[in-house]
Amino acid sequence: MAKELIFGHQNPDTDAIGTAIAYSYFQNQNGFDTEAVALGEPNDETQYALDKFGFKAPRVIETAANEVDSVMLVDHNEPQQSVSDIDKVKVSHVVDHHRIMNFNTADPLYYRAEPVGCTSTIMWEMFNEAGMEIPKNLAGLMLSAIISDTLLLKSPTTTDKDKEAVESLAKIAGVDYKEYGLALLKAGTNIADKSEEELIDLDAKSFDLNGNNVRIAQINTVDLPEAMERKAAFIKAMEDASKANGYDMFMLVITNVLDSDSEAIVVGNDEAKAIFEKAFDKKLEDSSVALPGVVSRKKQVVPPLTEAFEG
Amino acid sequence: MAKELIFGHQNPDTDAIGTAIAYSYFQNQNGFDTEAVALGEPNDETQYALDKFGFKAPRVIETAANEVDSVMLVDHNEPQQSVSDIDKVKVSHVVDHHRIMNFNTADPLYYRAEPVGCTSTIMWEMFNEAGMEIPKNLAGLMLSAIISDTLLLKSPTTTDKDKEAVESLAKIAGVDYKEYGLALLKAGTNIADKSEEELIDLDAKSFDLNGNNVRIAQINTVDLPEAMERKAAFIKAMEDASKANGYDMFMLVITNVLDSDSEAIVVGNDEAKAIFEKAFDKKLEDSSVALPGVVSRKKQVVPPLTEAFEG
Repeated sequence: MAKELIFGHQNPDTDAIGTAIAYSYFQNQNGFDTEAVALGEPNDETQYALDKFGFKAPRVIETAANEVDSVMLVDHNEPQQSVSDIDKVKVSHVVDHHRIMNFNTADPLYYRAEPVGCTSTIMWEMFNEAGMEIPKNLAGLMLSAIISDTLLLKSPTTTDKDKEAVESLAKIAGVDYKEYGLALLKAGTNIADKSEEELIDLDAKSFDLNGNNVRIAQINTVDLPEAMERKAAFIKAMEDASKANGYDMFMLVITNVLDSDSEAIVVGNDEAKAIFEKAFDKKLEDSSVALPGVVSRKKQVVPPLTEAFEG
Repeated sequence: MAKELIFGHQNPDTDAIGTAIAYSYFQNQNGFDTEAVALGEPNDETQYALDKFGFKAPRVIETAANEVDSVMLVDHNEPQQSVSDIDKVKVSHVVDHHRIMNFNTADPLYYRAEPVGCTSTIMWEMFNEAGMEIPKNLAGLMLSAIISDTLLLKSPTTTDKDKEAVESLAKIAGVDYKEYGLALLKAGTNIADKSEEELIDLDAKSFDLNGNNVRIAQINTVDLPEAMERKAAFIKAMEDASKANGYDMFMLVITNVLDSDSEAIVVGNDEAKAIFEKAFDKKLEDSSVALPGVVSRKKQVVPPLTEAFEG
């Protein structure tokens, strides 16, 4: 069987990297020849999880077609979030927990998506369905992915299955998930030593919303007011990035991972800002607004923006 | 939980109807409130299977949004093969075994696809994974769907999983699948008492191939020469349908289900015919050509046509 690469989205987070490693293990046990790779270096939080459970960061690739004919995707399907030459390779498998958008194939494929909080929750189910044991260190990594994506089971994306998976994986990994989870989330909130340019790209995704190129970045923090002191510099960096990349709107969501609240900063022309205001039924003040209770890009940001751009 | 409708594609076949009935049973056992419906009356083969295992034909719907907010799809995902107002409802679940094309959602969803011969094979796996017993009559209906889609395990779409599913379901249903399978396939080959207009619409699907509206219909027979005696009348009916519906190409595949061979009849302008000839590396003679060994629209017709239309 020809080798295939498995990877998550650009600007990888703990789910993108952790689930790629888990799926590669799973598929190799099933007789496939796969390697987990990544479309970027791990962020601080992901590096913390990799170190904790004894994994090396996956090799970073820029293109796939120079290595393989076929790839497997985790934690994404939208082509603009994938490897730069995704149109030159066949996608044979997808495991994901996002909406499906602009994902087209010439052939039938394996596709497994569920509306749960984390791709690793689906992986956990797949291990169970196959009756395959999850190695202790891999359970720790998958646990980290779920804690990361659900903000320790507090995000509105959290389902009963995520809770079950966390309980089960914590037991296998032998960790107290609440204590470890807080340490993991805090490891990802060190924004003081990073530039605004880095921060707006760290966990950023592009979306095609009714033909508009919309960039949505998210930063985790434990101190929202401190982060908002850098607002003018964030706006400058977002304006520069929009000019360079042709974004029609750039939205930065700064989330307090302990309180589950966010501030949004929005850059774009008046029309884009009006669409944002319609989507959230809030007035921007000097390009920003508080979004109490909003923590999930997927569930609380993309759907209202999609609707507002369409209508 | 609000009621949802479950249905397969337009011009339903035994998989579209049988798997909708199976998935509705499965989901209702899981606490959902669903009704299996259909986007058309059963064909002769499907009616034979329904009668054999004691099912009524599902209610036929024209639109969904007048009844429900949310639907579940089986055996298709492409919007032009679905209910006419698919854009007005949310798709919450999909179980399918086709390529993914032009299927876009605003929200995360449950999506389960595998490159196997029949959607009922995936359903069989899902019952097994959930540890849910398959009722005897339902097993017979799912068995019928797999026999139909794989031409009794002879189509090149057939996988080891389809074979396993057939063995397992035949045991539950208490039938000799080879004997029953031949009877089922023959039940779908009575074309003598149908008009050409009916026959080209019975198992027809539309595909968007690089912006072209391509119609591909398939007829099963046990006597190819007899069917080809009606060629001129088929061409006339296909030309009329193309004019009425704006098809850029209309391809009719007439398949001998016993020998696994087909004849193709192609209607369209010279450019469309040239694309067909490039796709199959065959010359049309008076709008038709033999395609030995070709029996699967999904695996042997749509992929080469997709490639030829793209470039």
